[in-house]
Amino acid sequence: MAGVKKRIAVLGSTGSIGQQTLQIARAFPERLDVLALAAGSNVNLLQRQADEFHPQMISCAGTIHDLPLHEIASHPEVDLVVVATSGAAGLEPTLAAIRSGKTVALANKEVLVMAGAIVMAEAHKFGVEIKPVDSEHSAIWQCLQGEGRSEIEQIILTASGGAFRDRAMEDMGNVTAEEALRHPTWTMGKKVTIDSANLMNKGMEVIEAHWLFDVPFDRIKVMIHSGSIIHSMVEFTDGSVKAQLGVPDMRLPIQYAISHPERWGNPELPKLDFDEIESLKLAPIDFSRYPCLRLAFEAGEAGGTLPAILSVADEVAVDRFLNGQIGFLDIPGLLEDTLGRHTKIENPSIEDILAADSWARETARGWCAS
Amino acid sequence: MAGVKKRIAVLGSTGSIGQQTLQIARAFPERLDVLALAAGSNVNLLQRQADEFHPQMISCAGTIHDLPLHEIASHPEVDLVVVATSGAAGLEPTLAAIRSGKTVALANKEVLVMAGAIVMAEAHKFGVEIKPVDSEHSAIWQCLQGEGRSEIEQIILTASGGAFRDRAMEDMGNVTAEEALRHPTWTMGKKVTIDSANLMNKGMEVIEAHWLFDVPFDRIKVMIHSGSIIHSMVEFTDGSVKAQLGVPDMRLPIQYAISHPERWGNPELPKLDFDEIESLKLAPIDFSRYPCLRLAFEAGEAGGTLPAILSVADEVAVDRFLNGQIGFLDIPGLLEDTLGRHTKIENPSIEDILAADSWARETARGWCAS
Repeated sequence: MAGVKKRIAVLGSTGSIGQQTLQIARAFPERLDVLALAAGSNVNLLQRQADEFHPQMISCAGTIHDLPLHEIASHPEVDLVVVATSGAAGLEPTLAAIRSGKTVALANKEVLVMAGAIVMAEAHKFGVEIKPVDSEHSAIWQCLQGEGRSEIEQIILTASGGAFRDRAMEDMGNVTAEEALRHPTWTMGKKVTIDSANLMNKGMEVIEAHWLFDVPFDRIKVMIHSGSIIHSMVEFTDGSVKAQLGVPDMRLPIQYAISHPERWGNPELPKLDFDEIESLKLAPIDFSRYPCLRLAFEAGEAGGTLPAILSVADEVAVDRFLNGQIGFLDIPGLLEDTLGRHTKIENPSIEDILAADSWARETARGWCAS
Repeated sequence: MAGVKKRIAVLGSTGSIGQQTLQIARAFPERLDVLALAAGSNVNLLQRQADEFHPQMISCAGTIHDLPLHEIASHPEVDLVVVATSGAAGLEPTLAAIRSGKTVALANKEVLVMAGAIVMAEAHKFGVEIKPVDSEHSAIWQCLQGEGRSEIEQIILTASGGAFRDRAMEDMGNVTAEEALRHPTWTMGKKVTIDSANLMNKGMEVIEAHWLFDVPFDRIKVMIHSGSIIHSMVEFTDGSVKAQLGVPDMRLPIQYAISHPERWGNPELPKLDFDEIESLKLAPIDFSRYPCLRLAFEAGEAGGTLPAILSVADEVAVDRFLNGQIGFLDIPGLLEDTLGRHTKIENPSIEDILAADSWARETARGWCAS
């Protein structure tokens, strides 16, 4: 391996996952070469990253350096594309990377939620492995190493339960954005932290898991695990169960998506202190408490354009909640109404999905609590 | 796979593991062919097993059908040998199986404890995989599927804590054999149940894990897990941890050792009820409470003939305890004194090990509590 570096492109390098990806690149200069960086609006940070890593390509949206992401993702010298963008922005570069035979480390949830059927079909066609970066999907993927996909009995996704897991339902109507942004165990971006508080995030993960591991929705179970130590589990056909555990730190799944099939010792990554783990608590989910999770299962099962509608409507809903326009408990209402008004398209094309995206965005923006 | 059956030989077919192996064979008549059965003294049960499975070969020790086990283990038509004998009896047939290129499913702890260096060297030489049957080693082995052995940071063996885990030390001197035979979570043979009560069993498992997975003793950790749901864990170099979980039922690891690399759906095997698992408790081990475990680590680390001495002395000690000749808390004293009187041989041959066996058996039989 000496001398052979993986050449990576980081799309969304100034976001939470992007920055942590560069921490991994910093820790392994002899193994990783940062070939390209792309970011949205944080020009100053992007400049500092460029000064440190000297990438061949830089793209900054809305500036004169606004290189299309799909060009970076399909650049001949790139080996691995870390898709750490958010929303629909990751869709086109992910498909470009797949069609150029690049390995994809996927952190952008919406890509599979919106267009899972298309993305996985292309990945299959081009023989590309989608390496999950989410801690839950990384856990499942790790548990599946050396195992046959046909031997999965069910997937058990764990959920921390979010910021309000111990709060009474009747007190949740008037929680503030600030309160919702205080996640008990993970440090993440704003959107995903709000999505964690109502398990919308877990709902999107259910849809992602369905596509990544080709498992039907009735074989995906969600359990509350407040400690965020067990990142997810797989039950096999013979009744054996594997779980992946670790300190809740996104750098571990990010690094594994990059190092796979190897594992790299990294002194900067925190280790589980087994003597401090007294108990790993698990609890069944109360769907009545988490209507967003129910909606995600329903939209996922219904398929077509519905998961894309859910994803985009949620993007708008969280934005409106953070801006104080709607209450925390209005989010599922907005989602359910937007889903209800949509006329589903079966087997949608990318164009259908993007059209559904625009429609959902407008509809969700105009939604009023009745 | 249709029509291609695995042809198995079951050595020790009337013991606890042997009987459960035949339950698996009964569940998969289209996949398994029981080619040979061998047992010690339970002639009636062996006869009933032979009537059901129609093996080509039967061996019953001390009768006119006393076929040497190494002949069965190396028979040309046998694919897989289940070594479910106990004590030193498994050593010769295990080596014979390995040298004939047979896959070995190993349930006989003493084989690796007594002669791990020789057995693993031969397995390596003949390209044979030793498939562990013990639930803990099966768990570790399952966690290692698809992973590189060089990426193991440490192994975490879980222990139920045995029948007396909640009893005060001062009350343990006069526990009866009957009390010690009441294991809280597992149903097993007598010897292993007593060995579980003082963690001697766990100590032997530490030595086995050292040999099976080529991991030094200071990277093997034992933790108390009273629920017996997490069967063991592996921490990797990047800090990721995998655990294998399941209902405490030996049929699952037995079946996996036989079905590997496949997994077979078996409706007779109990499944974990995730909604019933409230908490998975883990606790550090108190070595002062479990002197046998400390002795096993020390004997394993010292190597040579010492682990064999420990194993044989324990066989005698448990026998004497069950017969009421010594107390429960005398067991570690007998072991420590026998180990202390032995002159260790480095890199012992099988003959050295068998001589040490005889010496230790005699010494342990003559031991008196001072």
